[in-house]
Amino acid sequence: MPRKPRSIDLTQVVEWDNGRIERKHDYLAVEEPLEIRIGEYPLTVTMRTPGHDAELAAGFVSTEGLVSKRADILKITAGEELTGDGSATADHRNVVLVELAHSAAFDPEKMRRNFFAASSCGICGKASIDAIRSRALRTPNRDFRLDPEILIRLPDSVRAKQAAFGRTGGLHAAALIDDAGNVLVVREDIGRHNAVDKVIGWALLEKRVPLPQSILFVSGRGGFEIVQKAIVAGVPVVACVSAPSSLAVRLARELQLTLVGFLRRRRFVIYAGENRLVTAAPPPVSEG
Amino acid sequence: MPRKPRSIDLTQVVEWDNGRIERKHDYLAVEEPLEIRIGEYPLTVTMRTPGHDAELAAGFVSTEGLVSKRADILKITAGEELTGDGSATADHRNVVLVELAHSAAFDPEKMRRNFFAASSCGICGKASIDAIRSRALRTPNRDFRLDPEILIRLPDSVRAKQAAFGRTGGLHAAALIDDAGNVLVVREDIGRHNAVDKVIGWALLEKRVPLPQSILFVSGRGGFEIVQKAIVAGVPVVACVSAPSSLAVRLARELQLTLVGFLRRRRFVIYAGENRLVTAAPPPVSEG
Repeated sequence: MPRKPRSIDLTQVVEWDNGRIERKHDYLAVEEPLEIRIGEYPLTVTMRTPGHDAELAAGFVSTEGLVSKRADILKITAGEELTGDGSATADHRNVVLVELAHSAAFDPEKMRRNFFAASSCGICGKASIDAIRSRALRTPNRDFRLDPEILIRLPDSVRAKQAAFGRTGGLHAAALIDDAGNVLVVREDIGRHNAVDKVIGWALLEKRVPLPQSILFVSGRGGFEIVQKAIVAGVPVVACVSAPSSLAVRLARELQLTLVGFLRRRRFVIYAGENRLVTAAPPPVSEG
Repeated sequence: MPRKPRSIDLTQVVEWDNGRIERKHDYLAVEEPLEIRIGEYPLTVTMRTPGHDAELAAGFVSTEGLVSKRADILKITAGEELTGDGSATADHRNVVLVELAHSAAFDPEKMRRNFFAASSCGICGKASIDAIRSRALRTPNRDFRLDPEILIRLPDSVRAKQAAFGRTGGLHAAALIDDAGNVLVVREDIGRHNAVDKVIGWALLEKRVPLPQSILFVSGRGGFEIVQKAIVAGVPVVACVSAPSSLAVRLARELQLTLVGFLRRRRFVIYAGENRLVTAAPPPVSEG
């Protein structure tokens, strides 16, 4: 029997609560790329939470207009079924094969002409991280140190610079902050990744990239692509108001970026790179 | 002078508050597609909030690894600058042209090989809606009527069927509900669009598509693609816990889908298709 895909991951974190530091265990929403193939044709890669991958593929080909009824799909083979013996690697777990009937209106050449290119991160989380590595990206500024008191003031300082509507939560915000806590730029967008691209684009046009003394602040959650963009821009610290994803944490740990989540009031959780923030860390939780 | 791009839109809505119905004005976050071109090459289309489009393009080409420094970019021409006389159409406002220096490592052929196809919705909001229309999609079930009392029970009934972690808000949820308020299926994902594809995929595999007697419920916001997916699946009512975007509302109005937002406690806001929900609507707000 293939094991049930996990939608949550347990991991060790450091909690900073009004100056009190504690190691804890915390749950993360799992984020892994899924490649959807139509026969041999790689249709798309989407970052998803594993589970119900066949349904996801069926829904995707349906809502993209490739199929209109059940009979248009001959077979969907997802994840560990691909090997037949349950011995799937991460690669197999993150691929789903869709075989279409002749009734389905799928034309790879037409797809190529009509669809725009979008970046993908490879077949699995590991491939995604390898792809980042292959771009010769390195750990951002190892010597950067940040006072937690600067960090906890960020939500208020960013909010003060947002337009009225953004302050109501109607738009996502991203901001770049210098090592003294000064907000360099705030941008808003309905897409969090766009708000991040806007602040990094601002910095690039201002000839300020790489940004080895800066913090990237984002409202809401921190997914893989937010951490990826920070690493590309050479930003050493990413701070999110809500939770990061499992893959964001993995990438941050592998490339030793400081990743902070749940930055609210006088509290935050450190998921990676605590050395930039915490000088006297408590001993690890003993594993039972 | 080109006018400042709008990040928010004012629109007329119907508020249902514990049975009391009122017409109001409400703000929406603006969502419009932006096409980023490298010379003649259409690189990507992203759904974004207009404003700072040159920065968004600079950030995108930077975080995707096409450029690494300011000097790699010769020129970025965004939006209304394209015409030179401020007479831009919607098409011009939603295009940004990036001219790269020879130092930039851009190879269209390599892009085509290494990047996966992703669906795009055309150049502007109008083109996006036209593209939906060109797929011969029609107004979902005009005769469907829904008791508001069924609608306001949805957040609780869906939450009761979610896994523990999802209930904490760690994952997005999507659900299909029948006309009696029964939850047919709930799926969770780190990506809201994936959760929606999973429930529609479930329905397709169960031979239940189209879904003329169903409601699509989504936690969080409702963007263009959520409404688009509902229309493809023939769902007449979309209900979101948070706000819809401007383009979601436009598409819902044009194709007469019922779109409800801010569904919380005993209150919701109707953005489109009120006839399926409200039998005795109040007179319009007089325009001052």
